Order: sequence, then structure tokens, then C-alpha cells
Amino acid sequence: MAPDRLDTTFAALADPTRRAILARLALGEASVTALAAPFAISLPAISKHLKVLERAGLIGRSRAAQWRPCRLEAAPLKDAAQWLEQYRRFWEESLDRLADYLGELQRNGAGRDDNG
Amino acid sequence: MAPDRLDTTFAALADPTRRAILARLALGEASVTALAAPFAISLPAISKHLKVLERAGLIGRSRAAQWRPCRLEAAPLKDAAQWLEQYRRFWEESLDRLADYLGELQRNGAGRDDNG
Repeated sequence: MAPDRLDTTFAALADPTRRAILARLALGEASVTALAAPFAISLPAISKHLKVLERAGLIGRSRAAQWRPCRLEAAPLKDAAQWLEQYRRFWEESLDRLADYLGELQRNGAGRDDNG
Repeated sequence: MAPDRLDTTFAALADPTRRAILARLALGEASVTALAAPFAISLPAISKHLKVLERAGLIGRSRAAQWRPCRLEAAPLKDAAQWLEQYRRFWEESLDRLADYLGELQRNGAGRDDNG
């Protein structure tokens, strides 16, 4: 996994329209026109987003049909998920620390009740 | 999870220096000077990267010590991982399809041997 591949993957995902396009393609192949339909933006603007996704390897376009449907390509998402996975222990630790902190607050509260 | 939060998280991760800073902070708190040391870039350039990470909520800076150490904040990474997780079945399916395809190639190869 070249670092620049992660760069283009994360950059491609840093946009709500592009994430919505991927969510739509998760339901199945779609034409550019169909992909553009739910968005209040122009067809050229959608095409630009599709080019970013295509360069990032997140979508492929079939050459078989004349309408050249777009499809989801999930391999870069897997690599991004694997990169994030390295940090799982940190977010799990944060939840543990929060639980500890809440427990401590409860104990301190109980202590004050005893003394007051 | 507001969509714009995912925007800033993914945008912050779309840079190899920023990912390297997070990897360093996974080892423990560090000062800006210590974080800058491994990179052949200026201290102001590092500060700019730290600001992007801080705005994305990926790092926090302690006000307790005078050297204001930076620490990793993993919550946005968890949200990004959860977003990616929705697509897991697609990358697992791709591997299944590849296995099917290789199986088919083998069978076809065997078929040609029988006929040839």
C-alpha cells in the first residue's frame, strides 16, 4: 500500500457528495444521470466528483454497455479501514477511561453524601 | 455524526505527514519540537499540520504543562472506521469473486488440457 494511495482515498472520501455517490453505488451499478439525480448540482459537477472517485480507484466504469454504468470498487476502502484499525485500541481505551471517570464521579458523589 | 465531521476527519487523514504525526502520538504525548524532529519540514509547516489535526479533533493539546504536549484523540478515527465498515461486505465479496474467477480459470485450463 503506497502512502499516496491512502492520500487519494482519504481525499476522495472527504466530501459528502462523493460519499453519497458511493452509498448509492452500494445498491448497485448506476449511470451518471442516475447518480446525479438526487443532487441539486450540475451534471459537470457530478462528473468531476466521479473523476475524483475513479482516480482514487473507488469506482469503475463498465465499457460493455453504452451507458457506461459506474460500480463501486471497494479495495481502497479496505486499505483505509486497515489503516484506521491500528488505532482501534485508542478509541476503545477512551471509552474505558470514560467509564472509569464516571465510576469515580459516582464514588466521589457517594463520599460527599457520607460526609455532608 | 454530522457529515462535515467526516469531511474534516478524512481531509485531515489525506496527508502522509499528518498520518505520521498520529502514528508518533500513538506512542505517547509529544511536544511540537519532538513531533517536528523526524520531518524535513519547517516548524511552521508542522504547526500548520497540527492545526488541521486539532480542528479535526484528532489531537488535543494539554494546557497543564508549559511545553503543551500533543496527544492523540481517537474518537473521529472511530467514526471514520464505522463509516468504512458499511462497505466491508464489498471488499470481502471482491475477494470471493477473485477466488471464484481463479477457480474458473483452473477449471477452464483443465478443460483445454482434456480437449487439446
